[in-house]
Amino acid sequence: MKKAILLLSGGLDSATCGLIARDMGFELHALSFSYGQRHGCELLAAQRVAAFIGVCGHRIAHIDLAALGGSALTSSDIDVPKDGAGTGIPVTYVPARNLIFLSYAVACAEALGECSDIFIGVNSVDYSGYPDCRPEFISAFQKMANLATAAGVSGRELTIHAPLMRLTKSEIIKTGVKAGMDYAITHSCYDPDPQTGAACGRCDSCRIRKKGFEDAGITDPTLYSA
Amino acid sequence: MKKAILLLSGGLDSATCGLIARDMGFELHALSFSYGQRHGCELLAAQRVAAFIGVCGHRIAHIDLAALGGSALTSSDIDVPKDGAGTGIPVTYVPARNLIFLSYAVACAEALGECSDIFIGVNSVDYSGYPDCRPEFISAFQKMANLATAAGVSGRELTIHAPLMRLTKSEIIKTGVKAGMDYAITHSCYDPDPQTGAACGRCDSCRIRKKGFEDAGITDPTLYSA
Repeated sequence: MKKAILLLSGGLDSATCGLIARDMGFELHALSFSYGQRHGCELLAAQRVAAFIGVCGHRIAHIDLAALGGSALTSSDIDVPKDGAGTGIPVTYVPARNLIFLSYAVACAEALGECSDIFIGVNSVDYSGYPDCRPEFISAFQKMANLATAAGVSGRELTIHAPLMRLTKSEIIKTGVKAGMDYAITHSCYDPDPQTGAACGRCDSCRIRKKGFEDAGITDPTLYSA
Repeated sequence: MKKAILLLSGGLDSATCGLIARDMGFELHALSFSYGQRHGCELLAAQRVAAFIGVCGHRIAHIDLAALGGSALTSSDIDVPKDGAGTGIPVTYVPARNLIFLSYAVACAEALGECSDIFIGVNSVDYSGYPDCRPEFISAFQKMANLATAAGVSGRELTIHAPLMRLTKSEIIKTGVKAGMDYAITHSCYDPDPQTGAACGRCDSCRIRKKGFEDAGITDPTLYSA
């Protein structure tokens, strides 16, 4: 079996991406990040999803993005917006997050050896306006990574797979359900209840998730507090 | 003054790069990494160099690359070679290290705001065969970073400056000495004496440094144990 690194947040997208990668026949090595996110319970979801998919290994890397500041997802000084998406890049954008995550995935692939495939669940359709979720970013990253690494030098091309890139949220959900995913174990909310872990139902991430299930005509198994 | 991020290892190259950036008129925000390197004393050197250059701020980010394994610089299971450079990519190559460092620098620049310049002291001449020190990597990284970030989206182009790229080690040393650098405060050795911090004098990094001073006709102020 070919080895692949799976970037796994514990959200709906990365869980679906993981099932797709598994069904393509890859031996999966999951990689999650504890980066100072206020929705730390997504790491518990990542562990549930990793077990559900049946990954070969799961590493949680500790990196300090909160110290950099500048995002509502990592700073308690900036509130998570609850009244729908505005225009432009939202305050929940974590500077260069996917860039750092993918860079670690490249390092993991190099250290693991004989691993040329990386899966990331980014999506350019319902993507909330983050610059690092666009196809042109993924394509430029792959090109750059092949110049950065021993794998690239040796002619073993690294491939960044983003199988959800051009799917709508409802298409992603239908794909996952068809592949047997139980979305009740995933977590999407940016601002969950600190006691119960229930999703707020009002942040951008909750809104997009809710609408995805509605559009797909599938019952949303998420526990919302509002 | 324009703000810039300076990647600062505490070695000869990044110190020289910092002086060049300062003399170009940038307000410098230094960024160093505690990444599980066996030559942790380079962080003390980074602090000395930051003070010498007169940076505006200095952040030391803690990231765990040792957990990934695969390099003599972070794993005690792999010895640092002492008998000169072999062929191919050396075992001291840390997978995707410069990629991760630059990704953090991009995140720092984004979080700092109004910062579009990043300095890195990579060098393709005496570079020991690391793939992530080549000009084509830096150029591809810059292109990719402008697609990854809010800065890029807003049309404020990020520039990755690598002013040492095409200089030999002796040219770097001459440049630094001319700009007033005191290289006694820098640290290059991969395997320093754990008690005294003295450079081993035999690893690739020591060999390249020694030869650089010889070629430049400048006295090497380094304390070597061999």
